[in-house]
Amino acid sequence: MKILVINAGSSSIKFQLFEMPEVRVAAKGMVERIGESEAALSYTAGEQSLQRKVEAHDHQQAMSVILQVLTDARIGAVKDIREIKAVGHRVVHGGEEFTGSVKIDDAVLKSVERFADLAPLHNPPNLTGIRAAQKALPHALQAACFDTAFHSSIPQTAYLYGLPYEIYETYRVRRYGFHGTSHRYVARRAAELMGRDKYDVNLITCHLGNGCSITAVKNGKSVDTSMGMTPLEGVVMGTRCGDIDPAIVFYLADKGYSLEQLNDMFNKKSGLLGISGISNDMRNLIEHARQGHQRAQLAIDIFCYRIKKYIGAYTAVLGTLDGVIFTGGIGENNAMIRRQIVADLPHLGIEIDAARNEANKPRERLISSERSRAAVYVIPTNEEAAIAADTYRLIQE
Amino acid sequence: MKILVINAGSSSIKFQLFEMPEVRVAAKGMVERIGESEAALSYTAGEQSLQRKVEAHDHQQAMSVILQVLTDARIGAVKDIREIKAVGHRVVHGGEEFTGSVKIDDAVLKSVERFADLAPLHNPPNLTGIRAAQKALPHALQAACFDTAFHSSIPQTAYLYGLPYEIYETYRVRRYGFHGTSHRYVARRAAELMGRDKYDVNLITCHLGNGCSITAVKNGKSVDTSMGMTPLEGVVMGTRCGDIDPAIVFYLADKGYSLEQLNDMFNKKSGLLGISGISNDMRNLIEHARQGHQRAQLAIDIFCYRIKKYIGAYTAVLGTLDGVIFTGGIGENNAMIRRQIVADLPHLGIEIDAARNEANKPRERLISSERSRAAVYVIPTNEEAAIAADTYRLIQE
Repeated sequence: MKILVINAGSSSIKFQLFEMPEVRVAAKGMVERIGESEAALSYTAGEQSLQRKVEAHDHQQAMSVILQVLTDARIGAVKDIREIKAVGHRVVHGGEEFTGSVKIDDAVLKSVERFADLAPLHNPPNLTGIRAAQKALPHALQAACFDTAFHSSIPQTAYLYGLPYEIYETYRVRRYGFHGTSHRYVARRAAELMGRDKYDVNLITCHLGNGCSITAVKNGKSVDTSMGMTPLEGVVMGTRCGDIDPAIVFYLADKGYSLEQLNDMFNKKSGLLGISGISNDMRNLIEHARQGHQRAQLAIDIFCYRIKKYIGAYTAVLGTLDGVIFTGGIGENNAMIRRQIVADLPHLGIEIDAARNEANKPRERLISSERSRAAVYVIPTNEEAAIAADTYRLIQE
Repeated sequence: MKILVINAGSSSIKFQLFEMPEVRVAAKGMVERIGESEAALSYTAGEQSLQRKVEAHDHQQAMSVILQVLTDARIGAVKDIREIKAVGHRVVHGGEEFTGSVKIDDAVLKSVERFADLAPLHNPPNLTGIRAAQKALPHALQAACFDTAFHSSIPQTAYLYGLPYEIYETYRVRRYGFHGTSHRYVARRAAELMGRDKYDVNLITCHLGNGCSITAVKNGKSVDTSMGMTPLEGVVMGTRCGDIDPAIVFYLADKGYSLEQLNDMFNKKSGLLGISGISNDMRNLIEHARQGHQRAQLAIDIFCYRIKKYIGAYTAVLGTLDGVIFTGGIGENNAMIRRQIVADLPHLGIEIDAARNEANKPRERLISSERSRAAVYVIPTNEEAAIAADTYRLIQE
């Protein structure tokens, strides 16, 4: 059975077509620069791939482009779009309502629309993607998989801020957490690798990409996570500031910055980019730091230091710690960063083996030393596969 | 030698007169409601004490009231104000300039004035207190002891936020930390109690009063602390929110709150008061929680949970942990809160002994169990004694 996984952003749609239940990728690609005069399609199926300019003035048109290439006689992966039995959509914000993936109906669409208030940059394009898929594939089941759902198990003690309770009641201001599909995927995979039941592991999962979040997983469930009401809170990221003194907003507003400018600064000009002044790309920063660029080194040091603090905090929360998982672009590929993060943590039972850490193969591997009480793993994340699996489960219900 | 210690707030002056080098309190008291139609003096010297209404339209007049009662023939502690050889002032913000206590001269006054920008509620009244003391006691040495000074050893990796570096360069936005005199006092005292050199201990000091902060002390020096550029950041406090997603400011501003309202809410209506909806007083909350008040219990739980996370984070930072110190109103007096904070931390080598924890005497005592790798102490703070000691040292230079 073919299941299409869709991740719709404001000007792009990423897609992967899965053969289920094998979880085999039959084809994948992306339409970028939707709404611009020239959009671009990239596509891979097996050995074949292509890149070309396409017309995609809106998401509906982009969806047509995707279905055209998927059914192309030469490089397509299906003969008829009716072979696609279901579409799984990544949706960023599920508010307090969704604790897992669901079949999409009008009520679900209304909720996703409502939560746009909490994720104004993400939920509206997610919704546009769903509507485009509904029109283009009316026969298929549509499913929504929420970034927030895995974190719905976080207890109130951890999700409430120290604000007046009415602010929570009235505006639903609380910690939601994000990257949930990724944290869940690597947590489940880690349990498998450890030969343990998925509800019998205490883990700290570190999703380190351009966005970064750390999650405390107790008995297989998320009990705390570093991102908050929005993806701005937590560790230092590519361009996001992470945790700061909230009074800094008042202070800088007093210096003449508008809230719009500060919002833009905190989200797009801060983090690794802001500290280093040169780049939000970790590989780039490491290269510059090697050549003596002090602020590149400073950005790396702050990045690692703040993650180390979260690992410590969540070690306190979890009690017994069975494993630490690194995933995401930086987490999977950057041995030096992993080493620096856990360098001084043997007293917490976390110790990596230098050779295992540096080795590039297999990509999924144990990197802790024999002495380490906690198993440390590199596990490539696969949110699309997780969404496909959820959607496959839903179509069988 | 008599040394007067002054803590001047916007509408009050607290004072203590010390006999040095014995660090014996000869008299102490407070003038409250300065600037109101009826100010109030409270005063204690040895067995005698008094409370009475006084006239204090400004800090200068309040200072006269203080010197009058200190030289009173019946209940005074000195015969002549000339016996007071020095005055030590608590000053909240020393910016990046002051790494320890200093004799006050015009340059110091200018700096304290300049840093008012960073501590608008505190530095101006501190300055007013200094000027009043200079006029009233022109013969005495005046010294300034900064709340930020002990934290001047925090490395850049820990004090920089993930914001554009220019924001630090231009506006000095960084972590400064507060309660420094208290953290230093209990850290030094803990080293004494442990029979260790003051630069040979790794500690986590928890100052838990109406304001709360946690400090990581490595080799006797502050290397990180929970309060930030202002005292708003960090753990949940009596009325302050502590750490929140900075995007909450943008979100609530969008809902119609002005920055002034939010600043007021975060500082004065949040924390224990905001969550519980009833009180910022921990004893009060515990009483209500015992009677089944759910939000009182919730406020207590969040308070303890967040401190536990900081203890974990700083354990990661410190490597070897020699001791955890509780001080401040809540930290010194509330056995239940201490127990809840460290309840699940034996895996970090922190374990308290129930009987030692519950015992009220002596106030300064070890409360860890025999098994605990880290010594856990209750140490009553004494910022005034620390300021007196600094001032005594300065007068001898």
